Amino acid sequence: MEFEPKKAQGPVVKPGEFAFSAAGLDHGHIVGMCAALVEAGATLKTVYDPDPAKVEGFLKRFPTARAADCLERLLDDPETRLVAGAAVPSERCALGLEVMAHGKDYFTDKTPLTTLAQLEAAKEAVKRTGRKYMCYYSERLHSESAEFAGQLIAAGAIGRVIHVDGFGPHRIGPLSGRPGWFWKREKTGGILSDIGSHQIEQFLFYAGEEDARVQFSRAANYHNPEYPEFDDFGDCALVGKNGATSYFRVDWFTPAGLRTWGDGRTFILGTEGYIELRKYVDVGVEPYAADCVILVDGRGEHRFSARGKTGFPFFGKLILDCLNRTENAMTQPHCFKAAELCVQAQDNAVDITPGENRGWKRDFSPPSDSGEEKENMR
Amino acid sequence: MEFEPKKAQGPVVKPGEFAFSAAGLDHGHIVGMCAALVEAGATLKTVYDPDPAKVEGFLKRFPTARAADCLERLLDDPETRLVAGAAVPSERCALGLEVMAHGKDYFTDKTPLTTLAQLEAAKEAVKRTGRKYMCYYSERLHSESAEFAGQLIAAGAIGRVIHVDGFGPHRIGPLSGRPGWFWKREKTGGILSDIGSHQIEQFLFYAGEEDARVQFSRAANYHNPEYPEFDDFGDCALVGKNGATSYFRVDWFTPAGLRTWGDGRTFILGTEGYIELRKYVDVGVEPYAADCVILVDGRGEHRFSARGKTGFPFFGKLILDCLNRTENAMTQPHCFKAAELCVQAQDNAVDITPGENRGWKRDFSPPSDSGEEKENMR
Repeated sequence: MEFEPKKAQGPVVKPGEFAFSAAGLDHGHIVGMCAALVEAGATLKTVYDPDPAKVEGFLKRFPTARAADCLERLLDDPETRLVAGAAVPSERCALGLEVMAHGKDYFTDKTPLTTLAQLEAAKEAVKRTGRKYMCYYSERLHSESAEFAGQLIAAGAIGRVIHVDGFGPHRIGPLSGRPGWFWKREKTGGILSDIGSHQIEQFLFYAGEEDARVQFSRAANYHNPEYPEFDDFGDCALVGKNGATSYFRVDWFTPAGLRTWGDGRTFILGTEGYIELRKYVDVGVEPYAADCVILVDGRGEHRFSARGKTGFPFFGKLILDCLNRTENAMTQPHCFKAAELCVQAQDNAVDITPGENRGWKRDFSPPSDSGEEKENMR
Repeated sequence: MEFEPKKAQGPVVKPGEFAFSAAGLDHGHIVGMCAALVEAGATLKTVYDPDPAKVEGFLKRFPTARAADCLERLLDDPETRLVAGAAVPSERCALGLEVMAHGKDYFTDKTPLTTLAQLEAAKEAVKRTGRKYMCYYSERLHSESAEFAGQLIAAGAIGRVIHVDGFGPHRIGPLSGRPGWFWKREKTGGILSDIGSHQIEQFLFYAGEEDARVQFSRAANYHNPEYPEFDDFGDCALVGKNGATSYFRVDWFTPAGLRTWGDGRTFILGTEGYIELRKYVDVGVEPYAADCVILVDGRGEHRFSARGKTGFPFFGKLILDCLNRTENAMTQPHCFKAAELCVQAQDNAVDITPGENRGWKRDFSPPSDSGEEKENMR
């Protein structure tokens, strides 16, 4: 095979050359974000969260970091070049505006923001301060199978990308283990923003689309009537400016018997072949293996394991981008376009919740001649 | 495991108890249709097609059948109880109306019809004659993995079905090997009718939905500008009356390196687990195996091979339905509902063909606030 996973380089800076801090520990992703930056050479300096228990847990994982007694102390630290945060989604933009106002770059967990007004504020702040507002779209950036798919496409393995399908199932786990904000639409931004953001970002990246449009989206509360604002299912169809299409489905229905949190898949259809990613488990196959990549082209069916092969080049590139004011890890427009589309997908989603799970009863209307579907729009 | 594939019974009638004939050999599916009926005990009596070469080929496969010199001879045969046909899609309904007018049941290749006017005529004829207008939705009826999925759902293996995803990729093969009608929209009904009909039928069946609605559909000519009427890609989102949702994608982009004509998949998401069917190939796995069924539930990940296990119970049931005037194989409303929805999906599809493959240039409009998408409607 001429297609082999290419390994990321190791640390891109020497110890102390790039210091960053962490603020907002509401989502566990903060650990992966910080660990990946440290692996790429960054120095984790300070951490702040209003909840001392969260800070204590964080320091067990990163014992060389110091706790700040308030956010301002962290923001005023002249050595901190970037702040990584995983606040409650609806508060991510506000934190980013503060970070950028203090002359630092911002690296937030996905989804990076939850409203179009926040997006406008973030864009304006980026323009005014010259700082970065980057996002941890982890299902691509922190996945070796996803990284390898990008290498395959760039090498021309499947020709021109015409369609991307994404499945983003998640395990909800014990309901009591979820914080209160998890069930609130205003806090999470809804399922299409929250876990849907990964999917939209992957479509834009793999199809090489700088702009796209949401053509259709749905959200539902199928099975959690005790939390009427919660979406446990969502899906969405998009079309890119250059004509590639996408569909994705996200849900909270991973059964207890799966060996990991979700059987995430990406299917990338090209004019000369296709790629399937079995990102977190090759379901039903023993022993446990993640990062399974299947490529079918004109010559045959090819299976790869990307695990341990590519590393995660995004993080080293991000450090260098911050130092050199370049955009090799991700462009700012790409980051914001994915955010914009996921907010639009959620805001325009047709609510197809059956029964009375939202507190009202859905009417089933007869098929319409036009194919238009606007009922129950929220 | 308590879930094991249940085997279909053998022949349901003795030789000569149920005679049928074949008319309209335009699509190769006629062979599978006749072979399955013969395996279930039916006697294939007569065949007619205006093309002698097609009849000759057919008789090589079914040497005990006799050739009729005209369609009327076949239709007037009092022993023939059912006529199986795989005419050009746009002519399937006209053939069925003739068959039913002669007091015989009709079993047509998918898609069973191509326009809503044909659907009305077929419904009226069924009502008037009391005959059956059944359809060979082969991707479920002639697939052991699909049959086993139905058994699993009926046994409650995944709880309530909330969503079905279907991928129906097909290999186009050498373009010169395709008949002229293959490229004509009016003849095939378009991709969402033709190969999409399988997908819609599977959704209705697995979700137990008697009625549903097309919410969004697209079609494109991505890569065959020399045939501007041809759709090489289509997709569609549906919602059922009881609230289950579906998405499917069909295309003609199977690369030459795949070991079979298409990597057909069905993903069925339930409240308590999910099922994946790898219908025609477990891609990338040696040795070649089809009918791979994966079930994930509360207890674990389970892999089954359904090949050689379930048989195809539809065909024996269809014979008995014709003899006993029952509807155990498939109800007439189910058959017609799938047909209706696929015509609607096609008629209302947004054309997302990029470039000038249809002979005109697509405009990319900016994102709309409403999420409505009606441009280029055909």
